[in-house]
Amino acid sequence: MTERAKEALAEADTVAGYKTYIDLIRPLLREQTVAATGMRQEVERCREVVRLAGKGHRVALVSSGDAGIYGMAGILIECLSEADLLAMPLEIIPGITAANAAAAVLGAPLMHDFAAISLSDLLTPWDVILRRVHLAAEGDFVIALYNPKSAARTEQIGVIREVLLQYRAAETPVGIVREALRGPGSAAVIRTLANFTQEKIDMLSTVIIGNSQTRRLGPYLVTPRGYSL
Amino acid sequence: MTERAKEALAEADTVAGYKTYIDLIRPLLREQTVAATGMRQEVERCREVVRLAGKGHRVALVSSGDAGIYGMAGILIECLSEADLLAMPLEIIPGITAANAAAAVLGAPLMHDFAAISLSDLLTPWDVILRRVHLAAEGDFVIALYNPKSAARTEQIGVIREVLLQYRAAETPVGIVREALRGPGSAAVIRTLANFTQEKIDMLSTVIIGNSQTRRLGPYLVTPRGYSL
Repeated sequence: MTERAKEALAEADTVAGYKTYIDLIRPLLREQTVAATGMRQEVERCREVVRLAGKGHRVALVSSGDAGIYGMAGILIECLSEADLLAMPLEIIPGITAANAAAAVLGAPLMHDFAAISLSDLLTPWDVILRRVHLAAEGDFVIALYNPKSAARTEQIGVIREVLLQYRAAETPVGIVREALRGPGSAAVIRTLANFTQEKIDMLSTVIIGNSQTRRLGPYLVTPRGYSL
Repeated sequence: MTERAKEALAEADTVAGYKTYIDLIRPLLREQTVAATGMRQEVERCREVVRLAGKGHRVALVSSGDAGIYGMAGILIECLSEADLLAMPLEIIPGITAANAAAAVLGAPLMHDFAAISLSDLLTPWDVILRRVHLAAEGDFVIALYNPKSAARTEQIGVIREVLLQYRAAETPVGIVREALRGPGSAAVIRTLANFTQEKIDMLSTVIIGNSQTRRLGPYLVTPRGYSL
């Protein structure tokens, strides 16, 4: 967590967020009012934050990773707009997004141009996602896959693997990181494009697909930037 | 800065890095030995870090933004490999990369799939960069441009603009952030694909090109993720 995020929590009188994330930061809370909500209640959560802030509360809305990367920042601004409160003071505090945390655990796979793609088709048509994977693969981008698999959505990662194999070698290294840097549950493995889907992958995992230059160096996954050694 | 980065600096007996970045963290240093080096001396800097660590020093190598995103993590691992010291203890501490910091200043432009592309052609052929811009534009990725312009490299950003205009509307919003969140020098503007190259852009700037969904909401740049309000 950044120092600024910690300060902002201390300055708030109310802390709102998805209950799993609220639980992660409970040790940092004192007497703040807590408004914890369930999964997939993002709009309701933001409307409540806007309502409380409109009443004069200083509210910290907690988001995992970076609030600005597949997080709560966008929907909060949309809710401010809906309530005609865009002039209200708002500070967006960036954080360590899953791709960056996973990369640090794996070594340095994101040293060159990369694309971040979420495989969640709840809000995005599957054909848009698939098209992006095709184009990112064609462009030799390193690819960070967010939300690679869920309990209800298990087939897509296999389809993505087939697409990537049209552009990249079967031995292309792939890193899978679960709960990156989030403590004892954190785990990472390096596999290949041929076999990575045999590993445990879920909504707490981030998958990083190497590009044509990515290689294993000892325990690390590295995409060289091109320095001559 | 994250708490872990601050702790790691305190734990080190030696701090190495590009002198401009060392100056930014001097207030955090006590009696650590400082090994500051000039720009474009990345390989020499890492070899020195490896040499010092090999002698038993605990060395913190400072990188701006996130060491794992166009930073020092990759070349350091390559230098460890060169010295046959890949088994040496190494902790890579992720940070707030320029795209994330710039996004937080602008609002929430990276709420959906995005591509990070560096326009620096020092280590990457220009045709590879251009091809990636074409494919990212075709895939409707939000695009974060690192190293958009330097004193010696002033023409490329105009070429990139022409490429993007083949795929995106002239009124597509573009955010330009200088020294994102780095204190008093920090500045941000929102322009359009048609006119953004008229602004001051340099190596301390990050440029975020909206996708087909990105819009201005009051003072903010937002790429909606698709929630129904």
